[in-house]
Amino acid sequence: MTGHMTPEEFRAHGHRAVDWIADYLAGIESHPVRSRVRPGEVRSALPEHPPERGEPFDAVLADLDRVLLPGVTHWQHPSFFAYFPANASGPGILGDLLSAGLGVQGMVWATSPACTELETVVVDWLAELLGLPKAFRTDAAGGGVIQDSASSASLVALIAALRRAGGGVVADRGIAGHYRLYVSSQTHSSLEKAARVTGIGAANVRLVDVDPDTLAMDSAHLRRLLAEDRAAGAVPAMVCATVGTTSTAAVDPVPEIGAVCREHGVWLHVDAAYAGVAAVCPELRWIDDGVAEYADSYATNPHKWLLTNFDCTVLWLADRAPMIDALSILPEYLRNPATTSGEVIDYRDWQVPLGRRFRALKLWAVLRWYGAEGLRAHIRTGVALAAELAELVAADPAFELWRPQRFGLVCFRPLWPGLPDAEADAATMALLEWLNDSGDLYLSHTKVPVGHERVLLRMAIGAPATERRHVLAAWERIRAGYALTARERGVPVRSR
Amino acid sequence: MTGHMTPEEFRAHGHRAVDWIADYLAGIESHPVRSRVRPGEVRSALPEHPPERGEPFDAVLADLDRVLLPGVTHWQHPSFFAYFPANASGPGILGDLLSAGLGVQGMVWATSPACTELETVVVDWLAELLGLPKAFRTDAAGGGVIQDSASSASLVALIAALRRAGGGVVADRGIAGHYRLYVSSQTHSSLEKAARVTGIGAANVRLVDVDPDTLAMDSAHLRRLLAEDRAAGAVPAMVCATVGTTSTAAVDPVPEIGAVCREHGVWLHVDAAYAGVAAVCPELRWIDDGVAEYADSYATNPHKWLLTNFDCTVLWLADRAPMIDALSILPEYLRNPATTSGEVIDYRDWQVPLGRRFRALKLWAVLRWYGAEGLRAHIRTGVALAAELAELVAADPAFELWRPQRFGLVCFRPLWPGLPDAEADAATMALLEWLNDSGDLYLSHTKVPVGHERVLLRMAIGAPATERRHVLAAWERIRAGYALTARERGVPVRSR
Repeated sequence: MTGHMTPEEFRAHGHRAVDWIADYLAGIESHPVRSRVRPGEVRSALPEHPPERGEPFDAVLADLDRVLLPGVTHWQHPSFFAYFPANASGPGILGDLLSAGLGVQGMVWATSPACTELETVVVDWLAELLGLPKAFRTDAAGGGVIQDSASSASLVALIAALRRAGGGVVADRGIAGHYRLYVSSQTHSSLEKAARVTGIGAANVRLVDVDPDTLAMDSAHLRRLLAEDRAAGAVPAMVCATVGTTSTAAVDPVPEIGAVCREHGVWLHVDAAYAGVAAVCPELRWIDDGVAEYADSYATNPHKWLLTNFDCTVLWLADRAPMIDALSILPEYLRNPATTSGEVIDYRDWQVPLGRRFRALKLWAVLRWYGAEGLRAHIRTGVALAAELAELVAADPAFELWRPQRFGLVCFRPLWPGLPDAEADAATMALLEWLNDSGDLYLSHTKVPVGHERVLLRMAIGAPATERRHVLAAWERIRAGYALTARERGVPVRSR
Repeated sequence: MTGHMTPEEFRAHGHRAVDWIADYLAGIESHPVRSRVRPGEVRSALPEHPPERGEPFDAVLADLDRVLLPGVTHWQHPSFFAYFPANASGPGILGDLLSAGLGVQGMVWATSPACTELETVVVDWLAELLGLPKAFRTDAAGGGVIQDSASSASLVALIAALRRAGGGVVADRGIAGHYRLYVSSQTHSSLEKAARVTGIGAANVRLVDVDPDTLAMDSAHLRRLLAEDRAAGAVPAMVCATVGTTSTAAVDPVPEIGAVCREHGVWLHVDAAYAGVAAVCPELRWIDDGVAEYADSYATNPHKWLLTNFDCTVLWLADRAPMIDALSILPEYLRNPATTSGEVIDYRDWQVPLGRRFRALKLWAVLRWYGAEGLRAHIRTGVALAAELAELVAADPAFELWRPQRFGLVCFRPLWPGLPDAEADAATMALLEWLNDSGDLYLSHTKVPVGHERVLLRMAIGAPATERRHVLAAWERIRAGYALTARERGVPVRSR
């Protein structure tokens, strides 16, 4: 019978697992970017029943190659452009490995002080690297905390905002259905999800207009909505401004929105999940505009563009008190002298779950391996490649570039002269599927309101493995696919 | 300047990280179980500012030894008895490593089909291993999903329960403050947290009485509360029954509670976070009593006692529809042919966050390495050691054993003849601190209502490294500490 894996067995199998990953990363370009399996194919290749007897670890590695890899869509592939990059990096992977090896659970300070204190150090470091305000530091009234994702960060921010808006009412008596959340059509879906989860309700999420050209939130419309709602007796709980929306990387005007929030005493959450980390570069520091003056909470994802394995979102608050008031519950078995002293942070009160992994290790490993200058170089590479691609798109009469083009995201659409809008969009989608089916690259799409909704292709650049040649090859592939699709649909192909 | 870690650099550093963990696990008994650092000590030993230039990975490993390890409370230490074990195991660690190396994000099926399909396979395997009902299988109306923790599982269950109780109202119009959640004083604090988060409010959490001897929920009192609340116009949303409470591993009578829920059409969530996995042993299969007949949702934590690294909770539902109705939002950029076809699971709709890690890999690695018989052997070892300790405690006139003693948890209190209750409890707490300060073992405490609240010591057995000698050594240490404390406080020490 298989017993526990001894440290020496672990050493041997661990070396093999590391080698597997090193080989996988070295050979990643040999795989199609997007998996070609059909629904159910992976499942049907696995045993229906669990094993009665233990199996050697090598059997797991063998099935990883044989059964799972064909079902993997390769997020670390240099030609993965579909979603904002979920950057993994060597130091990030190893930080996660060390966290798994230690196997500590940092729900309160006392259950592993280093887990809590390293987290405080690295979120303070990151705030400094990004130029975020001193109020976000734990030694002021605020503080930072690692969440699993920006969705959870938004939820925690909303819980804190509700607490502040409703006094003691929200956590104790429940919410009474007259709270409002303000977003735009471009805000991430997790905000609506948070409104559902917290009981505000999707119907109480107010959609603020966007500028039709930039898709940025219209602060004048926000002001009107807030005034209307307050006049009608509703309680505005939170406004979410986004720096770098998922759809097109649009940037809401945080200073203007913040001023409106200030007038009305409403909590301002800034969701900079994707773009926030780019503020590590001084030339992109404008990302922080308005944050120091107005933001009650701010979130960005080192797991997107800052080389830290998913999951690692950092949420900062200017005042941690309403969050802790809303989320703190202390059962007897968690009572301990350090908590009672008030001298320590218990991060369980800064999140929805109780338990927590030692995620600070991977962020620490990344910040130390790269240093500030290595992080800046990584961001600059993505920005430069995106700008170069945008120029190519803009120069090609068969394509239309979506402007403003921001950060590492390039959105554009092929033009299909003579096709009605619906058919043109269908042609764009057909081109997208053709490209993704090729296995050579992976793009995604979005719709933006240009008069009415039109399909755009999205190409997000910023994976560490992505070089100029991958971007240029993708562009050539897109042009070739366009020419083919256009011929099939009888559209005259314009050439440069 | 430091660039990206190449695959060959990763291989070299990875081997060193694996060696570090192997050495750590082999030498874990050389560390005090509970960290001795004072608040702020770890933080002050780390640089105040992030590095400008990259550093070698060996510097991270060196600081792990020098700065962090003294601040670590060692959850994998064989004498860690304070909380339910957060079992890490070799295959669990390596599964997590492979997940980090692949770096995929499985928010929808299409973003890595293997991530979704392996998860479905392993949660179905686990349901079979634990004897859970067929309705919990994804190919029926229900299904299982990995959550980060039982807190999140409870929250998702409550969201689904609210949806069912309120029809379309809850997700759309928000909740109106007249919903109720039913728990006992012994239910995990995450349920009250979920009531706060969902807007039900802590004041609408109803405390059902417990049997004073067993601390199990009183189903007759539940029936009365439900009738009262419904008569008053409130809507009962969910009842949470617990199999293996955190405080004393008490077991609520699920069949009786389930029958009451059925009468009133109320959602029954069974929180078996700690004990549920023990049903892998046929002799403990009674853990599932009433689940097949009555449970709408059920959660257990392979990351506690089933050798899978934190985080890994499995939540099953008998009907997945209300959860998906409540949580599904499909923005354009996530629309894809597989999702549209309805042939696949998109697990983003089964959880609060959008993004998700490939956590199935670690559970898969564990189930395969150990096989069913290896898992049973692990559970049986913990149960047998706990039973042996319970006998020792019961046989010692200086101690009182809390009964019923269940699973791997032993609760007991020293007797302090002649001391008033408050002083006796203070003496117990002083003994606890003396033991934990020793570094040789780590226990925790709880309070249970015995007439009024009395302090008990908790000793949770079940770490893979824990052998009989560690339990016996702990017991000798407890007796020695008791004798010392009793002498200091002028209490006559009874000897066997």
